[in-house]
This record gives sequence, C-alpha cells and structure tokens, in this order.
Amino acid sequence: MIRTHDAGTLRASDAGTTVTLAGWVARRRDHGGVIFVDLRDASGVVQVVFREEDAHALRNEFCVKVVGEVSARPAGNENPELATGAIEVVASELTVLSEAAPLPLPVDDTITASDDLRLKYRYLDLRRSGPAKALRLRSRANQIAREILHAHDFNEIETPTLTRSTPEGARDFLVPVRLQPGTWYALPQSPQLFKQLLMVAGMERYYQIARCYRDEDFRADRQPEFTQLDIEMSFVTQDDVIALGEEIVAKLWSELADYQVQLPIPRITWTDAMNRYGSDKPDLRYGVELVELTEYLRGTAFRVFAGAIDAGGYVGAVVMPGGASQTRKELDGWQDWAKARGARGLAYVVLDAETGEPKGPVAKNLSPEHLSGLADQVGAKPGDAVFFAAATERREAQELLGAARIEIAKRAKLIDESAWAFCWVVDAPMFEKTEDGGWHAVHHPFTSPNEEWESRFEEAPDQALAYAYDIVVNGNEIGGGSVRIHRGDVQSRVFDLLGISTEEAEDKFGFLLEAFKYGPPPHAGIALGWDRTCMLLSGNESIREVIAFPKTRGGFDPLTTAPTPITAQQRLEAGIDAKPKATAGTPGTDGQAAPVQHSN
Amino acid sequence: MIRTHDAGTLRASDAGTTVTLAGWVARRRDHGGVIFVDLRDASGVVQVVFREEDAHALRNEFCVKVVGEVSARPAGNENPELATGAIEVVASELTVLSEAAPLPLPVDDTITASDDLRLKYRYLDLRRSGPAKALRLRSRANQIAREILHAHDFNEIETPTLTRSTPEGARDFLVPVRLQPGTWYALPQSPQLFKQLLMVAGMERYYQIARCYRDEDFRADRQPEFTQLDIEMSFVTQDDVIALGEEIVAKLWSELADYQVQLPIPRITWTDAMNRYGSDKPDLRYGVELVELTEYLRGTAFRVFAGAIDAGGYVGAVVMPGGASQTRKELDGWQDWAKARGARGLAYVVLDAETGEPKGPVAKNLSPEHLSGLADQVGAKPGDAVFFAAATERREAQELLGAARIEIAKRAKLIDESAWAFCWVVDAPMFEKTEDGGWHAVHHPFTSPNEEWESRFEEAPDQALAYAYDIVVNGNEIGGGSVRIHRGDVQSRVFDLLGISTEEAEDKFGFLLEAFKYGPPPHAGIALGWDRTCMLLSGNESIREVIAFPKTRGGFDPLTTAPTPITAQQRLEAGIDAKPKATAGTPGTDGQAAPVQHSN
Repeated sequence: MIRTHDAGTLRASDAGTTVTLAGWVARRRDHGGVIFVDLRDASGVVQVVFREEDAHALRNEFCVKVVGEVSARPAGNENPELATGAIEVVASELTVLSEAAPLPLPVDDTITASDDLRLKYRYLDLRRSGPAKALRLRSRANQIAREILHAHDFNEIETPTLTRSTPEGARDFLVPVRLQPGTWYALPQSPQLFKQLLMVAGMERYYQIARCYRDEDFRADRQPEFTQLDIEMSFVTQDDVIALGEEIVAKLWSELADYQVQLPIPRITWTDAMNRYGSDKPDLRYGVELVELTEYLRGTAFRVFAGAIDAGGYVGAVVMPGGASQTRKELDGWQDWAKARGARGLAYVVLDAETGEPKGPVAKNLSPEHLSGLADQVGAKPGDAVFFAAATERREAQELLGAARIEIAKRAKLIDESAWAFCWVVDAPMFEKTEDGGWHAVHHPFTSPNEEWESRFEEAPDQALAYAYDIVVNGNEIGGGSVRIHRGDVQSRVFDLLGISTEEAEDKFGFLLEAFKYGPPPHAGIALGWDRTCMLLSGNESIREVIAFPKTRGGFDPLTTAPTPITAQQRLEAGIDAKPKATAGTPGTDGQAAPVQHSN
Repeated sequence: MIRTHDAGTLRASDAGTTVTLAGWVARRRDHGGVIFVDLRDASGVVQVVFREEDAHALRNEFCVKVVGEVSARPAGNENPELATGAIEVVASELTVLSEAAPLPLPVDDTITASDDLRLKYRYLDLRRSGPAKALRLRSRANQIAREILHAHDFNEIETPTLTRSTPEGARDFLVPVRLQPGTWYALPQSPQLFKQLLMVAGMERYYQIARCYRDEDFRADRQPEFTQLDIEMSFVTQDDVIALGEEIVAKLWSELADYQVQLPIPRITWTDAMNRYGSDKPDLRYGVELVELTEYLRGTAFRVFAGAIDAGGYVGAVVMPGGASQTRKELDGWQDWAKARGARGLAYVVLDAETGEPKGPVAKNLSPEHLSGLADQVGAKPGDAVFFAAATERREAQELLGAARIEIAKRAKLIDESAWAFCWVVDAPMFEKTEDGGWHAVHHPFTSPNEEWESRFEEAPDQALAYAYDIVVNGNEIGGGSVRIHRGDVQSRVFDLLGISTEEAEDKFGFLLEAFKYGPPPHAGIALGWDRTCMLLSGNESIREVIAFPKTRGGFDPLTTAPTPITAQQRLEAGIDAKPKATAGTPGTDGQAAPVQHSN
C-alpha cells in the first residue's frame, strides 16, 4: 500500500503518529506561510498543514501522497462537523502522484450540474460524496441480499445473456452471430425461462443479480440495461416467496435506511388496491381513498355519470382535503392536468368552507338529493373538494382517480416524506381483454391461476385470479413474482384461452414446454427491480444515481459516446447482411423467429 | 413449503417422525406387494416404502409429494453408502405433482451421454449429482470470494455491457441501436476501461463478477460469453494485488478442494518460466526442466543447430525419463506430434539403458565431444531420451520444448493428479515485436513498465518489463493483472512506441485519456477467469461443466436453438440497415469507429 492510514479514520488518539496518506486535494487555503489542504480519500477528509513552498503548486483534485505527523488542532480550531476535526496532519513530505487539469465539473457537493455534464465526467461526479455514497450503498445492498439468500441455501447461478429471441412484451436487443451468419442472439429481457428450467433441473433454490435488457422507447427513468435480483424456488407456495421477500426488504431497510419494516407487510388484493387507491401500486403513506358512487348516483340526470352507469360502468370520487380553498385558476389547472393524462377533464364540486354547500360546475347537474348526501357518501368535510371520474371501463376511471389522488397528496402536502409504507398487492387478475376481444396474460403466460380458479378460469377470464404478487413501497413497485404453472394440462388451457396455437407455443417457448414434460416441480419466484430498490434506499429520485455509468435518453452514453457507427469491415465480419441458410420454414419472413437447423 | 423435511437430511434419530417430502423418483423397485422408491431432492436421496397400489404408476423422474413415517430399516437392510441409509420412510400418502415422459437422457450418474444430448436436455443432466454439484460449488466460490472482498472494503459495482466498441485483440459482439439508427453498441470484452474509470472516480476498491464477451473462433473450451472475477485497487503496488489474489485462491482451495495452499505462492519471472519450462504458464507438478545448449553446442557441424546458433538463436533440450525404452513407432510419433504443432520435427537422442551411449538420428550428427558430455549437460541418465529444439527465435524453440515437456509428463506418467502447484509468473515483457517490425503491447497499452524500465523502456523494448502478473495452477492460467499507467507522460511514450498516433489514441480510448487528465491515482488490478477457476475447483476438465447453460461449438445452444434468424420486421425495427446520420468524419468507411454526434 502506498498509504499507511486512511485519511478519514484519523482521530485525536492518533496524535503523535507519523502517517502516510494518499488521496485528492479537496480544497486548498493559503494563509501566508502556511497552506491548509483538505485531503480526501474514500474514507473521508483530513486537514493537512504544509509549511513548505512546494504545496503552492497544488490545485484541486491533484492526486497526492503526504507524509506527516498527526497533531491535535490548536484549541479553538477544532471542526466538530468533520469526523477528523480534532486533528490535523502536519506534512513533512509531499509527492504529487498526478496533476489535474482545470475541472469541467467541480468536485463539490454543493454544486449542481446538468445530467449530461455529470455523466460525461462521471469519474469526477463520483468523487462527490453523494454519488459515491449511492454506489457504496448499492454494493452493500447486494451483500445483504446475498447473505440472506445463502443462509437459505440458495445457489447463485448465472444464466446466458446471449440467447434466443423470446416474446415478453418489449423488443429484444439483437446480436449478429459471425460464426453462424444470418442468425442472431437476443439479449434477455429477464432470466425467466432459464430460471424455470433450473427448477425443472432440480436446483430448487436459485438467485442471481441479473443484468436484463429491454429495447424500449426511453422514458424518464428507464435504462436499456437494468438489473434485477432474480429468485426462484421449488416446492413452495406464494406465502414462502412473500416471506423471503419480506426478510430481504426488512434487512435492507433496517441496515441501509435505518427503518424497521413491520412484518408481515400488509397485503391488499389487486381489486381492493384499484377500488381504494386507483392503482396497482398504491402509495399508502396517506389516505385519500377512492369512493365508488355508481349505486349512489344511479338515476342521475347528469349525462356524463348516467352514461357510464347505464353502460355498466363506474362512477367514483376522491376528496381533496381543504380543496375548496383553491383558486379558480388552480381548479382549472386540474382540467389541464386531466387532459394531459388523456382524460376529457375532471369533474368536481367544492364544499363551502362555512356551510358545506356543494358548489361548482357539477353541482348544478346533480339533484338536490344526490347533492345533500354527497359529503357523507364520500367522507368530505366543509372546505374540501370532491373530484369525480366516470367511465364505461371501471379501471379507466379508477386510474384517473388514482392519479388525482397522488396529485392531491402532493398539492395538499399530505405526504410524509420520511415515511415508508409497504404493501403486497396480491390476487392479481390472470387476464385482460385485448382490443380485438381476445385475452392477454397480465403477467406472463406461465403464471399460475390460484386454487379457486385453476379448474375454471375459462368461465370468467376477466375475473380469474393469479398467484401473482407485487411488493410496493410508497407507490413504487419494487418487485413482483408469481407461482408458475407446472402442470401441462393447465398450461395448455392457458395457451388456448390466450389464442396461442400449439405451433406458436412450440415456436416461441418449445424448449420450456419440452422441459415441462419431465416432472417439473411446483415452483414460484420473484424479481426485485434492483436499480429502483437501491434508488429508494439511497434517497435518490432517479435510478441513474445508483448506476455507475448510466445512459441518457436514447440510450446515449455521454462518457464513451456509445453507441457509434461501425465500420464496413465490422459489418462484413459480423455477418450482419448474411442470409440465413435455407431451413425448414421461411425464417425471416413469416413474423416468427424459426429455429435454425444445426448439424453437429 | 410443500415439504416439511429435506429427504437427504433424515437420520435414525428422526425415526417415528411423520414427514412430508417432495422430490423426484430416482429409482423404483417392485417387490410384490411392496414398492421401494428412492426419492431424490436437492439434499439427497431417501428410500420410501409404499404398500399401496398407487405407487405402481410411478416412473422415473415423476415429481411427487409423499407423507410418511420415518422408520429404522429392518436389521441387515441398512445401506451404509447412503447418508440416509439407516432409515426409510413408510409412505401413507402419495401425490403425483407432475409426470415424466420417457427420458431422452437417463438421470443416472453412471451414464455417459454426448455433450449435445446433455446440453439439449440440460435440465435432466443437472438432476445428476455430478453436474448439480459443479453448479453448487460455483455458487459457493462466488460467496467465498465476495466475503473476502467485502472484508477488505471492496465495492461491488456493475459496469455497462451495452458500451462502445473498443479494440482489445478480439472481435466485439455488436448490438444495433433502434433509437439511434445506424449506430451500434458493443458488448464488452472486459470491464477494463470502466474499472480504471472507477479508480479515477476515487472508488478505490472495485470488484465485480463480470460477464464478458469475445467473438472468437470457437476453440474446444471457449464460450462467447464468459465470466471473470474482476478487481481493481487504488494506491497499491503489485505486491498488494498479489497478496489479495493469494488470499482468495487459498480460501477457495481450502474450502472447495480441501487443499491448503502454501503462502506466499512462489513467484517465477516470465523469463525464468520460459527458460525452465518453455511456457508462461508452467505446470510445476513435475520437473522435466528445459536445458539451454546454445553455448554447449556452439561450433557444432550439425546444421539444424548451427544455423540457429549462428543466427543468434537458441538450442535447448528436455529429457524424457526412461524415454529410451520407447519403440521406434513411439519415437516416430513424436515427429507427428511436433509437425501437428507446426514444427518441422523433434530431434532426439536416446541414451542406451545399459551403457548410456547416445543413439538415434541426431547422435550421428554431433561430434564425439558434444555427445560424450551431453548426458551431464542435460541431466539425463542411461535409459532416458533427450529431445532438442533449435530456432532463431528463442521463444519459438522454448515453446516447442515446453509443449514436449507437458507431453513427456503425460506419456511418462509424471503427473500427480492429486497435486496442486501454484505460481505467479511476474516480470512479463512489456512489448513484443510485430511482423512489420513495430511493437505490440503484450498485455494492454495501459500496463505499467516496472520501476527499472519506466524511464527507459524505449532503449530496449524487447527487454522492458512490466508490472504484470499471472497466477498459474497446474499449467492453467487462472488469472492475471497489472499495475496500470497513471501518468500521462508515460502513457504517451507507450503509445509512441506502439505507433499509436494521438488521433488514433483519442479515437480508441479518448474518454479514458481525458479522465487521466484529472488526478488519476496509481492503481492496479487483476481478473480471475472464473469459469476456469471453478472448473479446476470442481475437478472437471471443461468449463462447460460449471456453466448452467453453455454453448457448443459455433456458439450454438442445443437447448433453445439460439441463435436464430430474425424476422424482416425485427430487422427493420432494430434499424440494422439504417445509415448513420452524417457526422464529422466518415464513420463506417475509414476503418475506425467514429463517435456519433449527439444533440442533447
């Protein structure tokens, strides 16, 4: 080691010790013949005192080695805000290990810089305490999760990332294969199929902190590559997976966020979550629950509501405490907010703060009876505002109210930012209707119906429930999983309902179906979105903060400037334009990837 | 949990306990009214006794749940070879969880099957105890390495796998980028550049069990994706990295191979390794050292040797103990062996077992003086054979002798298969000559010259030594690393010597050079080839055995049949045929990937 001590660990008890330190010049102050330098290394900062000329040449972020003696600071000069504030190091020897050019990004926790600048100079950004701390926390999170999983006899197993294109709802990234020109690997969207194969293989307990890839249109907080803590277990029920998930989450929050999660974490059914919060990932840090008014308002003359009710739809409301005091402009703002979400608007009444009398555009359209009972019905008090949504599709109206609920909590400052509110959302629906009247798997087609529905999900696919569970904290889904189908007959019936033909199933995941012929065990799993989990634990608002070298929008890396064009030679060598050898079927033209014939 | 107990954990002390087990039918024997089933789960095997009819339907690899009572086996029926051999479980209830079709690959440790069959049905292959054990060992190896690294304050940090094409001696796998049509990511050959950036970022101690990608022509034991335990440290010397490597290796071998590595592991210089063993990864389980004869044979009339000696080259020999007893056919076989390696042949003399008299083709060509002193010179005894190699390039001849040495050890059965012989190969050369008379970096262009050569490697590039180190066990290189250059002036001189222009350096790794302007710390690292390390630890002879889903030759996966053709729609969507937007330079035509302009 070039150093004998870590700078941030020196204390008053080290006074008199000669130390060799190595790190970066965080700050330099000239006081006549004396120069004070804050020397920073991974452990922290210590003040170094130079009485020699050579320290004049030091500039911020020079990398230096210093030999000196630890000395108590003169009385009155202690810095109680610094862990090393009781001492300073009186330098006797200085070596500049490397110099620093003028900094494009100051290494200073108080500076804010654009994301592009931060990422272009990420190596300077990460010298700041906040960004560095986020990466260290993530490393520790990995360690905590692994300790628990190994204690439960899980095996960490790597699954392939050069694999076969499979349909999972998003586009695959593709990789041309030089040695088999005309054919391509796909980067996996998740290890889902491989982890199920590992269960068929009798590995029983698998985990992996797995890199996954989705070629999606970039939204604010998406990365083309992301990480999940991926877990699968055999011979278990939903409760076993949930208990393991809770153990991991509780330890993470206890150790990294100093918060004791109350176990068991409350469970809410998917239907309750939609009915009460208008979301399948409800933020439970505040109330503001939705109230259904479909029955209450039945018979109303107000066409917006009557239309939904008559069509078998839904009318509901959500209350904004104190919302009656909003200005006209603020209330109009809600209409813009709703339109930005694709709704036609957001009907509301305000309750007079004195009299409780309902006012506002919708009030004029409701009968006196409906108006007089409204406050009681929705649980509103004088001074509150009541927002309504109505739609033929219950879910559509509930989701609008759910979004309004979140917005209400923000505008009315109902959110305790220091709180952590966890829940499991369980009993999710198996299927949802497609636009062409068919059915689509809400999770994936290997998700098991629950015991109640296993024998009869075809009778009412829209009501059939799955053994599927998501874990939610503060309105963020941080993980989810399901019990998988392990019976061939059930799997066939699910495929039938989804309109997946035998040929199509064979083509898409024939190897998994083949595996399921050979005594597959009952199995279930979960995946935690590791970027988001670490983001929340570190108190950050973007997953970029817990990724060493994240990409910006469009998948661009400001640091390396990836992606780049390739050369004609690379293109030729990689076989990008090669035609696949003729095989059975007409690969490349029929809308489905066909397996390639292989001769050895 | 579906089960109450793990099958393999039941012991005599459990007798009388009612248990619920779940696992697979490993074997079934009908004895009239009684059926014995070996029930296997991840923990092992237990014998289950059925007296009911329903067990007749059981076939191998059915997945079942059994309720029964643990019972001591009747006296005389114990099976001491089975951990559970003192007991059996008398079944009272049987549930078939899933059935198994006739098995394409018997789940039986005694069966050998082709690799293609094993990999196509890898989920059955992994139910066999050997393959399953290899994966479990690998999981444990990960855990051991991580425990050590976390104890030393290392941070586990993930680096990008969708990154920029960089030249590292092998081809990159490429990934088209839909959102920036005409541009491509590359999959990284190693995290080398990113881990160095993390050192510039002040992270100080980084590790990652990292997936890496090399698009190489497939050799027997190569995979297109592979894994390395990747480590980088700041403010350290070569000795610090070596000490850490030794700690990891010692713990792995102690816990997983029941072998205590003697520390410190001996170090041998690269030059000594070549001179004594003809290899930069010498197998030290046996002697059979090379002997240089260049001076001894100077002046010989034998043209093969004289030619090499006169050209400033090398003549050497290696002794095969007892090799004189080989038949003429066996001796001829050595010529074929040498020719298969690209050599013209392998000159030899045999020493008569009785008289010690040198005989054989070369003997006729050597003077009586050279012949008479030969045995002493090479350390041969009567009955031995002496193989020679001569070449203008010392390394070429030494490598032939080194290969002969390994072959001798095999044929003469000199290898103690139970032995573990570790060494570090240090002081590797910085540069090697290219065919066009220039210089090539033996490791990579960021490898630091050692202290002796730092100021003057240009004076004798062929002799300049690097702070580079490889760890070798039984002739397998399992890891290697180097101290990196952190001084801009040294880096520029290395680029100059390598003939890398400023523009080229800027284009290839400009972002790293830019980073090095801002106070880079001295740093060094190592990477352990994790597939090979786990292969050796598990006593296997192919890395495929420690990979859950390996590929065969040509990068084909017999299980999923990846790679496959893609559809026209996938091709269109991925932007594979899009032209990059016009940018500065002429990307795609000038032999170098040019950075793409990016507007946000």
